[in-house]
Amino acid sequence: MSSDRKKWSIRSSDVAKRAHNPIRQIVDKLKLDPKATKEFISLSVGDPTIFGNFNVDKSANEAIVHQLNTFKANGYPPAHGTLAARQAIATKFGVPEAPLTANDVIVANGCSGALEMCLNVLCDRGQNILLPRPGFPLYASLAETRYVETKYYDLVPEKNWEVDVVQLEKLIDSKTACILVNNPSNPCGSVYSKEHLKAILAVASKHHVPIIADEIYWDLVFKGNTFYPMATLTTDVPILSVGGLAKKWMVPGWRVGWITVHDRHGAFAEILEGLLNLSQIILGPNSVIQAALPEILLKTPESYYAGNIKQLELNTKISVDAVSKIPGLSPVKPQGAMYMMVGIDIPKFKDISSDVEFSQKLMAEESVLCLPGECFNYPNYIRIVITPTVDRLEEAYKRMALFCARHHK
Amino acid sequence: MSSDRKKWSIRSSDVAKRAHNPIRQIVDKLKLDPKATKEFISLSVGDPTIFGNFNVDKSANEAIVHQLNTFKANGYPPAHGTLAARQAIATKFGVPEAPLTANDVIVANGCSGALEMCLNVLCDRGQNILLPRPGFPLYASLAETRYVETKYYDLVPEKNWEVDVVQLEKLIDSKTACILVNNPSNPCGSVYSKEHLKAILAVASKHHVPIIADEIYWDLVFKGNTFYPMATLTTDVPILSVGGLAKKWMVPGWRVGWITVHDRHGAFAEILEGLLNLSQIILGPNSVIQAALPEILLKTPESYYAGNIKQLELNTKISVDAVSKIPGLSPVKPQGAMYMMVGIDIPKFKDISSDVEFSQKLMAEESVLCLPGECFNYPNYIRIVITPTVDRLEEAYKRMALFCARHHK
Repeated sequence: MSSDRKKWSIRSSDVAKRAHNPIRQIVDKLKLDPKATKEFISLSVGDPTIFGNFNVDKSANEAIVHQLNTFKANGYPPAHGTLAARQAIATKFGVPEAPLTANDVIVANGCSGALEMCLNVLCDRGQNILLPRPGFPLYASLAETRYVETKYYDLVPEKNWEVDVVQLEKLIDSKTACILVNNPSNPCGSVYSKEHLKAILAVASKHHVPIIADEIYWDLVFKGNTFYPMATLTTDVPILSVGGLAKKWMVPGWRVGWITVHDRHGAFAEILEGLLNLSQIILGPNSVIQAALPEILLKTPESYYAGNIKQLELNTKISVDAVSKIPGLSPVKPQGAMYMMVGIDIPKFKDISSDVEFSQKLMAEESVLCLPGECFNYPNYIRIVITPTVDRLEEAYKRMALFCARHHK
Repeated sequence: MSSDRKKWSIRSSDVAKRAHNPIRQIVDKLKLDPKATKEFISLSVGDPTIFGNFNVDKSANEAIVHQLNTFKANGYPPAHGTLAARQAIATKFGVPEAPLTANDVIVANGCSGALEMCLNVLCDRGQNILLPRPGFPLYASLAETRYVETKYYDLVPEKNWEVDVVQLEKLIDSKTACILVNNPSNPCGSVYSKEHLKAILAVASKHHVPIIADEIYWDLVFKGNTFYPMATLTTDVPILSVGGLAKKWMVPGWRVGWITVHDRHGAFAEILEGLLNLSQIILGPNSVIQAALPEILLKTPESYYAGNIKQLELNTKISVDAVSKIPGLSPVKPQGAMYMMVGIDIPKFKDISSDVEFSQKLMAEESVLCLPGECFNYPNYIRIVITPTVDRLEEAYKRMALFCARHHK
């Protein structure tokens, strides 16, 4: 036989054509005006390391240097992670209401890699997944490259971005593979109460739909709020919780994430086995960091976490105060994580017709970049990343106020 | 609507059921006899770091420590890799016959991750991929989880494992997405001549089938052999070459790999774009090691590479000499990489009927573990990893000789 090709023109696969990052597609259009004289300020990327004010604790570096110098942590780790790394994750994140052993843990290439494995194991082609709107765009990207239909449940800004539970229940059908819940939330900065999480769990329980809990912002909550791991609030809904070093330890580039499997009476036995199968294909994250993980997770001083929270609280206060005073903008006060959603009262602007245009013009005129809500499937809002230094934040809000003053009716 | 489930029993996806590692499945059966008194010697895992005799050069550690201490390499790297890392890869692996720029490079989660991206971008569900037999089992695992049919072309042990090019050509049909060529080879330890690689390329050229060149053992060749990067030998066949730090730098656990795209007159334009799309989903390897990559690739002293080759050559000589003297075993002398295939003359053994049984009994009686050829889709052989220390190798071959003396007719 022979190939059909008569010349060299190689088509990419359908999967590669489906793969895309909506943030990049939109941001690529927000070109910097070459005439701009103001220094660029990015409030756009959820990377706390950019401005030099949020750093990993130096004890983590020391733990890695120690492992490097032994020359004993350079070999292939077990596919689902070293026993010591998995044990450390179980110790750090297990609680009496949702206990964990090392056997319940799968180490992954960042929290994104953990999410990919969760979708891969739970969802078949042609099934659907329920996702939050607004929500982190990776969820849809992962679903689309796996031919899994995305259905969106709404978060209600007036209720601190709580889930519309009635609508959520209506979306469930015979093809619903799982519900993804992100708490604390990117892009909302919301932190759900125990009662609200139980209301979501009641829907999952009634219909026997498992949950993927994206808990990468674990414990990153501000005074007056409490973080409840979803798995601690149910005894019957099986849950895959995903996390990683990226946010709480401020090292998104290290690409270390994990899945903790909260099985219930064997409901997830096949899922755990499937995750172990999937982990065999590519192996997990860097072996040296896995070797240092017990030190990083269990020995980072409490003052490190407290210091980060304090700094995020201060930045949140500055952000809410400044943006509240800008006509046409309505911030929703964050309760945790690193983000603030800001409503734009589009009709009140004379020459701005969408959140994308708002972001484009703000970038062109003031060299301040915020992601438009469209990146998160939620128009008429912008998302502000609140991790820059105080002086950069204040400068950005000053420029935003000038910008709105010019464009507001 | 509602889910169909009336109880909690969550099935794993079809993809998760397809995911498996044939090596693990076979090795799990080779249980260690609890009565064994001899110290365990593994000649089974292609991980050169296990015995402490092959280590990364200390300059690589120093480069990483330097980057850690800046606290500036902890953020998200660009999805397809930092410019500096991609530039270093282009500089290290580009040659006048196959030049590279940073734009031709995609950084990946180990060479396995690079292979996964290559299959993802080139192969659609229902197409087929041509794979070597014997061959590294990950190729088939990746294909099967993507519903891509595997077709095998034979390597001929009597010709130093050269490809049966006539048979290769016969396998090509209208659904053939690509040919995978692994040189130097795992499990064969073969290194192809320029003429042989050109013969393979001629088939690809005639039928317009692109090539994935797995060149992870780049330059790991022994005296008298020369490594030719496949892309240097053709001006018309588009090639994705994959590599990584795992073998040449002796750090398989670091999980740093890459793809270099050798386009020809735009034949791969869509493929390059597809790879960039795919890289957006999970991001690449650890940012600190990416930051250190220019130092590691371009400043590791030549004496480091030469020292490793010298040690591998010595181990090869010891292995060939020892195994040649064992009745019933016929080693095929390796030309590079870290492996030696050994034929077993099964009819000459009185109570061993297969390579799997040979491995099982050798393990049970002598605590020496070699992978049976079945792991590589090639019965009646075993694969020996030649990286242990000389004293471990000599002890292993002594035991193997005793074992064969007992079981040989």
